Amino acid sequence: MSLDVEQWLLRRGVSTSDVAEIVYSLQRPYNPDLTVEECNDSVLAVLGKREVQYVLFTGIALDELAERKELPQPLQAIMEADESLYGVDETLALGITNVYGMIGLTSFGYLDKVKPGIIRKLNEKGKHVHVFLDDLVAGLAAAASARIAHQDPKANRYGCSG
Amino acid sequence: MSLDVEQWLLRRGVSTSDVAEIVYSLQRPYNPDLTVEECNDSVLAVLGKREVQYVLFTGIALDELAERKELPQPLQAIMEADESLYGVDETLALGITNVYGMIGLTSFGYLDKVKPGIIRKLNEKGKHVHVFLDDLVAGLAAAASARIAHQDPKANRYGCSG
Amino acid sequence: MSLDVEQWLLRRGVSTSDVAEIVYSLQRPYNPDLTVEECNDSVLAVLGKREVQYVLFTGIALDELAERKELPQPLQAIMEADESLYGVDETLALGITNVYGMIGLTSFGYLDKVKPGIIRKLNEKGKHVHVFLDDLVAGLAAAASARIAHQDPKANRYGCSG
Amino acid sequence: MSLDVEQWLLRRGVSTSDVAEIVYSLQRPYNPDLTVEECNDSVLAVLGKREVQYVLFTGIALDELAERKELPQPLQAIMEADESLYGVDETLALGITNVYGMIGLTSFGYLDKVKPGIIRKLNEKGKHVHVFLDDLVAGLAAAASARIAHQDPKANRYGCSG
Repeated sequence: MSLDVEQWLLRRGVSTSDVAEIVYSLQRPYNPDLTVEECNDSVLAVLGKREVQYVLFTGIALDELAERKELPQPLQAIMEADESLYGVDETLALGITNVYGMIGLTSFGYLDKVKPGIIRKLNEKGKHVHVFLDDLVAGLAAAASARIAHQDPKANRYGCSG
Repeated sequence: MSLDVEQWLLRRGVSTSDVAEIVYSLQRPYNPDLTVEECNDSVLAVLGKREVQYVLFTGIALDELAERKELPQPLQAIMEADESLYGVDETLALGITNVYGMIGLTSFGYLDKVKPGIIRKLNEKGKHVHVFLDDLVAGLAAAASARIAHQDPKANRYGCSG
Repeated sequence: MSLDVEQWLLRRGVSTSDVAEIVYSLQRPYNPDLTVEECNDSVLAVLGKREVQYVLFTGIALDELAERKELPQPLQAIMEADESLYGVDETLALGITNVYGMIGLTSFGYLDKVKPGIIRKLNEKGKHVHVFLDDLVAGLAAAASARIAHQDPKANRYGCSG
Repeated sequence: MSLDVEQWLLRRGVSTSDVAEIVYSLQRPYNPDLTVEECNDSVLAVLGKREVQYVLFTGIALDELAERKELPQPLQAIMEADESLYGVDETLALGITNVYGMIGLTSFGYLDKVKPGIIRKLNEKGKHVHVFLDDLVAGLAAAASARIAHQDPKANRYGCSG
């Protein structure tokens, strides 16, 4: 099913290396030896978690249904307007953000606001609806960053298995 | 839109008085003067919140799409099986549970496990899919209970506006 | 530091086997081959996570400071009264509950309400203050249960690495 | 108790107008008529909520106890080092961030990362320990911003009582 979820992301215009670049820009300042490959591995590890896959399937399905105008009203109109108070996209992203602990919350909020790289592209209004995907990609990058932070031996100051 | 959300709930077999009965059974032990009418008012107040409506529209739409087999695979299969590790239903319910503070979390988990009244009916396998609705109704009852607890003057021991 | 956290728990009257018994009673209905030893291993695995240790250190320290009347007012009075609207105990428990995904939320709320075994003993008013510990033990048991649920091959219906 | 919490904040070097300035910088781009006074009113409204006060009392007490070296080890050392993986500060901030819905999450994470104004001052290492307060102020500003967003009539596109 890891393959499935990568294909769903690609279908929506997101590759794991797009996400890895965001992780790299977040974590590099704290870790000068970090490589993009390690970031990509971390993204793949997060995508290997079933609960993350379930969140992505659900959010992407809602985006695609909205794009095909197959949602009932008023939900269809709310999704088309990308209503700033909708909030369900942020809530759903929590199901990804937290898989490596609460420290993922900060990066998630930052990415969701600053919208670097692929997140900005997703957010640009076009023919596609990405109400959920931009938040879910921010959550995915935040979780992959938290995973790297947990593995950094310099962070293991109080030395436990993590 | 409050009317809309009540109609969506009725369409799925849930009346506000079904939810009020659960709130009453939760809160009565702490508040002997509580009436079912006050519980119903509290449910209506929670349903008046836009963010609650947005969560309900989204979850109910997913249930109905699954019922009509209109979701893409593997999401359709996951929803039909009501996979116990799905977790997106609990995540979405958080968007309702917390509207009157973190004390709603305990009641939510309790209701989601014990499944009293209408929650049990929703959970019984039939021709309907209620993957989301049973959790969302538990979240709604938990939030309406938390609202009553916050208003109880006996709880205002440290007297602030809440 | 895993040893540290076990000692802190013992100092407050909680052994890992107390928690394992709660996990066993929660998960046995779904898994007839489950043993108490496996539940104990799962509790130990959760306790091995640094973020879980940090939450436990913080909550237990607050309980002990309140017991020694060393907190500033009005916090000291709020903790002594075990104010039902305090909510910080439930919030802190979230930092444990979610380490194996959102499915831990339901068990947490259930345990926090029903208070089986050691959780009930902690909650009984005596000379000790356990405002945080009863919630944190409920969160610990919920996380250890979620970990077992994720490992159950019968739950791996959609076969991913989890 | 609203007065109490304002005094606690002032004692730690934070005025409501410090927080109002952050809210203003966050919300002004979406609302050209917004004034700093309205932002200050929004901060005061958030501070009037009991659950917010409880979180602030708890986090500030922990900071002050760490400053006086009155916490048990290893918690004292973790707090003094402001361990980046601690995470309990972010968890506690959730108890403030969400009081006006999940849309507060994004602003919280952004502020916690970018650290504008008073948040940066708190975060600068000096003789004071502000492990919790910088996150809690970010959460407070995020909640006050979400409250303004919910009240903006232009955001009320789907017109409900909110």
